[in-house]
Amino acid sequence: MVEIKNIKSMAIRFDISNGLSPDRDSKKRMLSDMDGMYLDNIALKEMISKQDILVYEFYELGIPEEPGHIAFGTTILYPGKVGNEFFMTKGHFHSIQETAEIYYCLKGHGFIVMENPNGITEMQEMNPGVSVYVPPRYAHRSINVSKKEPLISFFAFRADAGHDYKTIETKGFRKLLVEYDGKPKLIDNPKWKL
Amino acid sequence: MVEIKNIKSMAIRFDISNGLSPDRDSKKRMLSDMDGMYLDNIALKEMISKQDILVYEFYELGIPEEPGHIAFGTTILYPGKVGNEFFMTKGHFHSIQETAEIYYCLKGHGFIVMENPNGITEMQEMNPGVSVYVPPRYAHRSINVSKKEPLISFFAFRADAGHDYKTIETKGFRKLLVEYDGKPKLIDNPKWKL
Repeated sequence: MVEIKNIKSMAIRFDISNGLSPDRDSKKRMLSDMDGMYLDNIALKEMISKQDILVYEFYELGIPEEPGHIAFGTTILYPGKVGNEFFMTKGHFHSIQETAEIYYCLKGHGFIVMENPNGITEMQEMNPGVSVYVPPRYAHRSINVSKKEPLISFFAFRADAGHDYKTIETKGFRKLLVEYDGKPKLIDNPKWKL
Repeated sequence: MVEIKNIKSMAIRFDISNGLSPDRDSKKRMLSDMDGMYLDNIALKEMISKQDILVYEFYELGIPEEPGHIAFGTTILYPGKVGNEFFMTKGHFHSIQETAEIYYCLKGHGFIVMENPNGITEMQEMNPGVSVYVPPRYAHRSINVSKKEPLISFFAFRADAGHDYKTIETKGFRKLLVEYDGKPKLIDNPKWKL
């Protein structure tokens, strides 16, 4: 028996139409928070100099970071591109790599790109009503390929899993999703570092 | 490091409007599966003798029952009453009691009633867009108070949590949700056994 924090039940609202909660503040990732994450960093800098817009927002609710608890919330990823690369979340491994995550798409059109430390890449398409299971050991990133709509998902994972953002911030993903001939195309990341 | 089964990513569809998956078969609980669960078992028997209708259905996707995995799916609880008691799921503890569960309501109107082994009861109202956090150690049951609509929720919990249905099947919940003066009312369960 692992000792756990006793907490009470909670009801937290996340509007199905826009993913936002009237009950909590979201964490926000602006273009300027994405420095170095996109292939075309010059295009990124130019965009920021014009307007530092919101790329995505998500919720961290402060669930105790213990193995018996489940962290949950929504991610709202707005439409856009940096160069020919679609707006995306930074993506992360879990600090406890052997923990899965589940996404349930409420709105929009996009992909989750996943890769494990052995270099296996997986990709799943998201449309409203699609749940995507990110298995243990896979870094994962959401990508919005819609021109108009935000990509909105409900997510859940073991609350002690933690986030390792640094590996991706340093090395990048092996694969990137870019627009090519008007369609999404997964390409090798020329900036990926072993 | 816990050893875990390596599985690939998955995309499973659950229609947002009716909760049903075109990719998997649901598990179904008919009125006849609910023998002894409602206060008015005579009313239940009478209903079954007329037509053994579907009370609820849900998905078990066969995610490995290990602590690094997350089980997920939808529950579709249909509207109805047995006597003056609203249609509900059987409800269960997790076999590993120290594990939480998260529900995200997609449609309908209902409640989740929870109780822990110390006799503390909690209740949260569900409407579309409301996520309800069931903390570790709480048995939980969904109850549909709508006259027309199914109560549809997406759920996620640690895949090794397991289900202890027997405690509730034997003892019941301490509290029941019945219709009283046209409104839901939480009452003491006269049949509850210590």
